[in-house]
Amino acid sequence: MTADPIDRRLVELLGEDGRRAFTEIAQQLGVSEATVRARVQRLTSDGTLRIVALCNPLTLGHQSVRLLISVRGLTPRSVARSLVGAPMIGHVALVSGAHDIYLEGTPRDLGQLADLLDEIRRTPGVARIDQYVMTRLYKDYSWNGLRDQSGERALGGSGHPES
Amino acid sequence: MTADPIDRRLVELLGEDGRRAFTEIAQQLGVSEATVRARVQRLTSDGTLRIVALCNPLTLGHQSVRLLISVRGLTPRSVARSLVGAPMIGHVALVSGAHDIYLEGTPRDLGQLADLLDEIRRTPGVARIDQYVMTRLYKDYSWNGLRDQSGERALGGSGHPES
Amino acid sequence: MTADPIDRRLVELLGEDGRRAFTEIAQQLGVSEATVRARVQRLTSDGTLRIVALCNPLTLGHQSVRLLISVRGLTPRSVARSLVGAPMIGHVALVSGAHDIYLEGTPRDLGQLADLLDEIRRTPGVARIDQYVMTRLYKDYSWNGLRDQSGERALGGSGHPES
Amino acid sequence: MTADPIDRRLVELLGEDGRRAFTEIAQQLGVSEATVRARVQRLTSDGTLRIVALCNPLTLGHQSVRLLISVRGLTPRSVARSLVGAPMIGHVALVSGAHDIYLEGTPRDLGQLADLLDEIRRTPGVARIDQYVMTRLYKDYSWNGLRDQSGERALGGSGHPES
Amino acid sequence: MTADPIDRRLVELLGEDGRRAFTEIAQQLGVSEATVRARVQRLTSDGTLRIVALCNPLTLGHQSVRLLISVRGLTPRSVARSLVGAPMIGHVALVSGAHDIYLEGTPRDLGQLADLLDEIRRTPGVARIDQYVMTRLYKDYSWNGLRDQSGERALGGSGHPES
Amino acid sequence: MTADPIDRRLVELLGEDGRRAFTEIAQQLGVSEATVRARVQRLTSDGTLRIVALCNPLTLGHQSVRLLISVRGLTPRSVARSLVGAPMIGHVALVSGAHDIYLEGTPRDLGQLADLLDEIRRTPGVARIDQYVMTRLYKDYSWNGLRDQSGERALGGSGHPES
Amino acid sequence: MTADPIDRRLVELLGEDGRRAFTEIAQQLGVSEATVRARVQRLTSDGTLRIVALCNPLTLGHQSVRLLISVRGLTPRSVARSLVGAPMIGHVALVSGAHDIYLEGTPRDLGQLADLLDEIRRTPGVARIDQYVMTRLYKDYSWNGLRDQSGERALGGSGHPES
Amino acid sequence: MTADPIDRRLVELLGEDGRRAFTEIAQQLGVSEATVRARVQRLTSDGTLRIVALCNPLTLGHQSVRLLISVRGLTPRSVARSLVGAPMIGHVALVSGAHDIYLEGTPRDLGQLADLLDEIRRTPGVARIDQYVMTRLYKDYSWNGLRDQSGERALGGSGHPES
Repeated sequence: MTADPIDRRLVELLGEDGRRAFTEIAQQLGVSEATVRARVQRLTSDGTLRIVALCNPLTLGHQSVRLLISVRGLTPRSVARSLVGAPMIGHVALVSGAHDIYLEGTPRDLGQLADLLDEIRRTPGVARIDQYVMTRLYKDYSWNGLRDQSGERALGGSGHPES
Repeated sequence: MTADPIDRRLVELLGEDGRRAFTEIAQQLGVSEATVRARVQRLTSDGTLRIVALCNPLTLGHQSVRLLISVRGLTPRSVARSLVGAPMIGHVALVSGAHDIYLEGTPRDLGQLADLLDEIRRTPGVARIDQYVMTRLYKDYSWNGLRDQSGERALGGSGHPES
Repeated sequence: MTADPIDRRLVELLGEDGRRAFTEIAQQLGVSEATVRARVQRLTSDGTLRIVALCNPLTLGHQSVRLLISVRGLTPRSVARSLVGAPMIGHVALVSGAHDIYLEGTPRDLGQLADLLDEIRRTPGVARIDQYVMTRLYKDYSWNGLRDQSGERALGGSGHPES
Repeated sequence: MTADPIDRRLVELLGEDGRRAFTEIAQQLGVSEATVRARVQRLTSDGTLRIVALCNPLTLGHQSVRLLISVRGLTPRSVARSLVGAPMIGHVALVSGAHDIYLEGTPRDLGQLADLLDEIRRTPGVARIDQYVMTRLYKDYSWNGLRDQSGERALGGSGHPES
Repeated sequence: MTADPIDRRLVELLGEDGRRAFTEIAQQLGVSEATVRARVQRLTSDGTLRIVALCNPLTLGHQSVRLLISVRGLTPRSVARSLVGAPMIGHVALVSGAHDIYLEGTPRDLGQLADLLDEIRRTPGVARIDQYVMTRLYKDYSWNGLRDQSGERALGGSGHPES
Repeated sequence: MTADPIDRRLVELLGEDGRRAFTEIAQQLGVSEATVRARVQRLTSDGTLRIVALCNPLTLGHQSVRLLISVRGLTPRSVARSLVGAPMIGHVALVSGAHDIYLEGTPRDLGQLADLLDEIRRTPGVARIDQYVMTRLYKDYSWNGLRDQSGERALGGSGHPES
Repeated sequence: MTADPIDRRLVELLGEDGRRAFTEIAQQLGVSEATVRARVQRLTSDGTLRIVALCNPLTLGHQSVRLLISVRGLTPRSVARSLVGAPMIGHVALVSGAHDIYLEGTPRDLGQLADLLDEIRRTPGVARIDQYVMTRLYKDYSWNGLRDQSGERALGGSGHPES
Repeated sequence: MTADPIDRRLVELLGEDGRRAFTEIAQQLGVSEATVRARVQRLTSDGTLRIVALCNPLTLGHQSVRLLISVRGLTPRSVARSLVGAPMIGHVALVSGAHDIYLEGTPRDLGQLADLLDEIRRTPGVARIDQYVMTRLYKDYSWNGLRDQSGERALGGSGHPES
């Protein structure tokens, strides 16, 4: 993908509020609403952008677990691909460090957490798993980090209130 | 928060598409559009729900790093709170496992990654950091995991296409 | 199981002294002795409650070892089940963290400890074992922890005296 | 303490069923009921024996966490002593291995688990903590392990049924 | 620095043989010898390029040790800078993973290795050191890796013969 | 190899500047230029010495990754030999410590880094990999470390300027 | 073996000086020289005691390496037995901790160290090896530790002088 | 020290049997008994050689523990020196690997083991300790490893019989 400055600003505005009206965005970017709509359409259909509701699993009474997985024998990519479709797994990434794959799962309770771990241990190529049960979520996916770096104005209000 | 079954279904529908029209959601839930609007308003204002655009940082040319932090001397909560506002940090959670805090950061390049790590090392109470540089994102925040558990229909298309 | 407040108070009183007379418990709970007897019977027969003598293995001259086990290839549950019946193993639990299974064993001496470790290493699915030889027991299974949380009165005397 | 063979057999019988009638025990040991009563009294008052109700915390809806702690600067013994009285902590032992102290805690929920970890991190001398959230209890404090070693008959029924 | 394709090809040719004649390089690149000389001069003076003799320390009878260092309290950059000038240290880099700094040292013997480790332990901000004593060097700084990636011809002979 | 004092001094002078004129070296060593030429020829052809251009991969926009590999089942030597020829690998050494092999690779970007890790995971005998992404190079292959030890004059200017 | 107090005192005296005259020992123990001779003969032939010359390998110019080995699939005992006869291995023990077997080896140089590690990696059942190259020996096998515990007089001169 | 071939052979013969008669050694080495005596005297007085009785601590009913220590703030050498004189410590060495110091201690029982660990935790500069309780000794200080390397005849009988 090639993201021009207008794309980047668009991503940022929708990163603050995913339901922001396209007319408002158009005004801020100095382009037409049709342009905004077309760009969002393009960025969404090529997989760059997704607009979704985020929800702290703990406030719904679920467990949330983060897993770091080391692979052996198979390639990390092939193991990651086979984990993408596993139940309860909402996030899969390849990482470089002391493990190979990072996962997030949201089992409903401790019994389902044991189910999830059983499922992953059975996955070919999975060697070592380090597990982290989330006890509190302080901040979730915010783009203000990106903004802060460039010294621009701080974006307020993007942290999850403490539940 | 107490989320009743309608809230949960609402979260799920917006988890698939954050810009889904309220009229369509109302129809699916068998409630009025005003009810949908009011519930979204309530869930958003009490911090349960946020509708945002997610974007793979790698497709924008950024680095993405996941950090596991062990705390010493201070409480994990106080260290987490002081990291919430740090630049480039988009995600902060308390975890229980071999470390205490999980962070995600999106520095623009390797130089900013070094800035980020310098910043975190300087934070009082931070003892050990394990760092994971993301090399590929396969799947991002999807609620289909939650669906799959209950044996209901699989939700399609929620994975990030491989870039 | 569904434990109502009377069940919980019953568990707590027997957690302090497993041979407390049912008449005394009945008086404290404001129910009949028959009710106490029936509830203890029900909680025991459905596996919620067990009344046993605890004894510090070190005071009997035994070794006590705690083991953390990582599983590979098989599911943690199936490995845990095959370890439940192993000799010298008195405690088996699934855990989520840097390992999968927590065990306690009470071999009679260092030779039996080596036997125990040989036995576990031979168990299919056992990958990594971290071993902790107990050198002193300060406090054993007490429910006063649970009490303390709610701000109620501290329960005295539940720690093992130092041998 | 010096435990003679009758003491050991007494511990074993009460380890199977803490409310076993003293008359029954007396018969099995070939001693008088008064002797049983006196020995139980002695073993209990010198701290060798405690008769308590064990209950799987998970069946009461609690969390159960096992912690391995490394100490720095202070002695493991002094740190263990200061943890004995901490809220939610039901078990404290000194161990020799890659950590110094083993703890068990039973917080009511994830929020109390975070409280517990904050409390421990604040304790002077605590350096590194590895945390294990229990997801299932297969077997709890049974003495049949000890029996099995000597080749005697297997004791039945001492495992927790899977909840 | 901005390295154009000619710079890159120049780096590659000198990466194979640092004393290759500029006339030969000029011919291969299709530029004048003066251009080659000027570019090498520029790349060298701005620190991009250094032409040096590499020598396997083991063949000179030295020890070679690689160290991974975790930092605490100070920033990794400041610790790295203070290690750059330490005796016996020939290579210093910031890294992102389970440690912060990577070092190579070439002490003359085991006694000097102990001196080196004493020196580093004394450096403020150094927390944990993992040490790797080199026992054999198979391949040293070669650019053919870079070539291979693009599917171009393999470069021969760049490995150290086994001593 | 047997390196006499003249060889060592020769290595050192070329370690400072790989293109230093042989006449100048001859003068410093008090030998004829023919002797210098013959010795360089001998040391190069027996693999003791290689004169190459070093270049900070980060200044060329590449990634640089350092890998520590643990071997299982095969010998470290045979695994090292099979990695010597792998694409993007520029450095391979056997080490003694918590891992067996040290590698450096210079993938062009994060996608190639994932390729490299897939390639290595597939290599028979490779068990565990710890990965370190370089974020900054402070100092590269310098022989002044060797000089400093003996208390002789410090060699200036061998550090990479910070990019 | 059953070691009576005279045996223990005998072991201690020979632990200080293995060539101490039996007449002198007899005098100190208040027994006849024949008794001393008979006891040494018995303790030696049943494997309790060995009288040997200890020598710091580093002062002979050898390398000395200590290895901690984790076993998988086979029992630690069987792996230990197969390592007892391996070349360069002078010490083998089963241990309980984060590994299963402790070894000491004294290869002549770094090349033989690589041979040794190749040999061990090839041994069936060997999973993980942590390696420690000795850089200095401060104190070797002394029984004064045992003496000190009981508050008796300190034994002088048992440390290796620093080489 | 400079050990000539006769010294080395002398060390080897005494390494097999520390009480071997000097006349026998003289005969084997083809030198006079006075020469043997003088050399042993020299090697002993310069600290190269010590002749002692080795005894498996487990056969005496002691515990034996091996400790790996990481140092922070102070130099490994200074910490090693302060541990040389600690009670129950019989062996101290500097090592290069994932820790800095290797210790062996022989506490009489688990209570003294806890004393020993308290003592070491209190020692300034001691950061992390990994502890290994010995459960069986298979082979102790033998020089046949050295012999085997050179392909010479195997030395028999130097292993401890299994107790």
